[in-house]
Amino acid sequence: MKVKFHEEGEVWTEEYRAVWYDRPSNEIRFIDQRLLPERFEIFKAKHYGEVAYAISEMVVRGAPAIGATAAYGVAQEVMSKYNEFKKFNTVIQKAIDTLRNSRPTANDLFYAIDYMLNVLEEAETLEDPIAAAEKYVDDIINRCNAIGKYGEELIKSGNKILTHCNAGALATVDYGTALAPFRSAKNNGKVFFVFVDETRPRLQGSRLTAWELYNEEIDHAIIADNAAGFYMKNGDIDLVIVGADRIASNGDVANKIGTYEKAVLAHENKIPFYVAAPISTFDFDLNNGDEIPIEERREEEVLVIRGTRISCERACAFNPAFDVTPAKYITGIITEEGIFKPKEIQKFKKKIAK
Amino acid sequence: MKVKFHEEGEVWTEEYRAVWYDRPSNEIRFIDQRLLPERFEIFKAKHYGEVAYAISEMVVRGAPAIGATAAYGVAQEVMSKYNEFKKFNTVIQKAIDTLRNSRPTANDLFYAIDYMLNVLEEAETLEDPIAAAEKYVDDIINRCNAIGKYGEELIKSGNKILTHCNAGALATVDYGTALAPFRSAKNNGKVFFVFVDETRPRLQGSRLTAWELYNEEIDHAIIADNAAGFYMKNGDIDLVIVGADRIASNGDVANKIGTYEKAVLAHENKIPFYVAAPISTFDFDLNNGDEIPIEERREEEVLVIRGTRISCERACAFNPAFDVTPAKYITGIITEEGIFKPKEIQKFKKKIAK
Repeated sequence: MKVKFHEEGEVWTEEYRAVWYDRPSNEIRFIDQRLLPERFEIFKAKHYGEVAYAISEMVVRGAPAIGATAAYGVAQEVMSKYNEFKKFNTVIQKAIDTLRNSRPTANDLFYAIDYMLNVLEEAETLEDPIAAAEKYVDDIINRCNAIGKYGEELIKSGNKILTHCNAGALATVDYGTALAPFRSAKNNGKVFFVFVDETRPRLQGSRLTAWELYNEEIDHAIIADNAAGFYMKNGDIDLVIVGADRIASNGDVANKIGTYEKAVLAHENKIPFYVAAPISTFDFDLNNGDEIPIEERREEEVLVIRGTRISCERACAFNPAFDVTPAKYITGIITEEGIFKPKEIQKFKKKIAK
Repeated sequence: MKVKFHEEGEVWTEEYRAVWYDRPSNEIRFIDQRLLPERFEIFKAKHYGEVAYAISEMVVRGAPAIGATAAYGVAQEVMSKYNEFKKFNTVIQKAIDTLRNSRPTANDLFYAIDYMLNVLEEAETLEDPIAAAEKYVDDIINRCNAIGKYGEELIKSGNKILTHCNAGALATVDYGTALAPFRSAKNNGKVFFVFVDETRPRLQGSRLTAWELYNEEIDHAIIADNAAGFYMKNGDIDLVIVGADRIASNGDVANKIGTYEKAVLAHENKIPFYVAAPISTFDFDLNNGDEIPIEERREEEVLVIRGTRISCERACAFNPAFDVTPAKYITGIITEEGIFKPKEIQKFKKKIAK
């Protein structure tokens, strides 16, 4: 992704990924998403405890980027257990357990760990796990590019499009899921406008999505989550595209809290509502969205904003981090293999089982 | 309303109104709602310019409290024009115009000013306008009490109830509209729980409603606006009660941005959705909600929270302060004369014309 820097009147752009593996130091490195957009800093994780911390504290967030982090985390642990390199599964079990427990909702975390465990069973040299993790990450980015290509077909010049939370490069290592069609449309010269839900409580929209769109020079404005319905009802929104953290067999989608609200409002106002997600997000072990575990995060995320208390010292809050949007509200799911209706994803069941 | 104070380990309660007239100083005084809940301070307005500032900057907010403020503002101006006391309308025209232009959406502002102009035409002594403003304010509070009495019938012990924004004592001088049934139910020993939408961008829910419920010792939790749909879908909300800034002839309701979203979600989840408002909120000059002017406020309200920037320096935002909920989503309107379906409010048209 492009990142613009400003210093002493100069502006320049550099290319970054949300997470990457630094081989010389055996560190996993991240753009620290907690600090954006005020500060651009790199967070370095030397040990699986720090990797799990980066996931649970949301230094890195977004289902595909969490998966990538877990893949790197497994590979890093193997590298650091150099002398015991023989029977990976028992030696690194604690790292696996710690990573698995870092966050509950996104499917990619478990998908990536299982992928790495399969690789480890057949690994012959120490280089194999690192190469496998890099391959996993490159695969994600290729999938995001394909999502962009298919999703772009939905965008016409002049469209006004709503997105919720951040399903951009920051959430997927690079390029994005929900934001991939925007990048692709921009590259192809289409002119469109993005309404960015600020996405309380953690403000991933105003902090991260608006920052990505600024870096990509895509026109946009931030709105309070409460205003999305207002603009839909007024006919100002042509299309909604969001990401996903987990998709059940029946096409129900878990995504950032508030997604369900936007989906119902889009449905009521007859606005197409699309979910962009790689196939790794599908969880065919679950019959429907009711079976997706929903993370409840600290109440301070609601009561305190960027260090400033916004409510009584004595107030309490509830803070579910995700909700489930029933398949009936979803027009289509944009994947790396094309756009499908929620029902049609059943055809991927066999593929994934392989 | 009760206000709890904490100092050096002691806790005590005092009675306050959101706005009142101090006769010795000819000042209008307000609880400064911009500073709650961190600081409890009294804002004093000596002149109509300061009164209009208090309305436009939201020192005082909420349709009935804005109306009360305007009534006091007119009376204050008359008092300060003591020597010219004869032909009110021309002498105080500038004050009237300034107050009328302080905010566009709430009907009570215009209703209160017209009420005072009628009084002034027949006024014989300087005391009359002040007495009329006090009567107007006492009337509001009586109406709120009646709204509480009727609205309480909707609340059963064990209920979980959602409210949006602040339609409490702070918004109505005392007792509240949407919060009046809660006060009444609490006084009658009912046990219930309130979900408080934080209400971005100005956080009237987390800052003001939660503070009022704390003072009244009513159980509650703050949630991000994004989470209301989550709790509705999970069956955790039995009833929604909100206030109103203006209600058109056909029962369409303008209220704080986000109200429309909650109404659609309540409808989709078959949860009763009630609007609590005095009859002064009805505007029979408007056929439907499309004719209600919607205030667009400064983008900084979205981009900066309590002095902390939460987005890029270069980001822009849209900030509509209200939205319109079509009558079809509204189960009933709780007024001082009982609970009516949106269609039934037509019967008040003649009464108000009188």
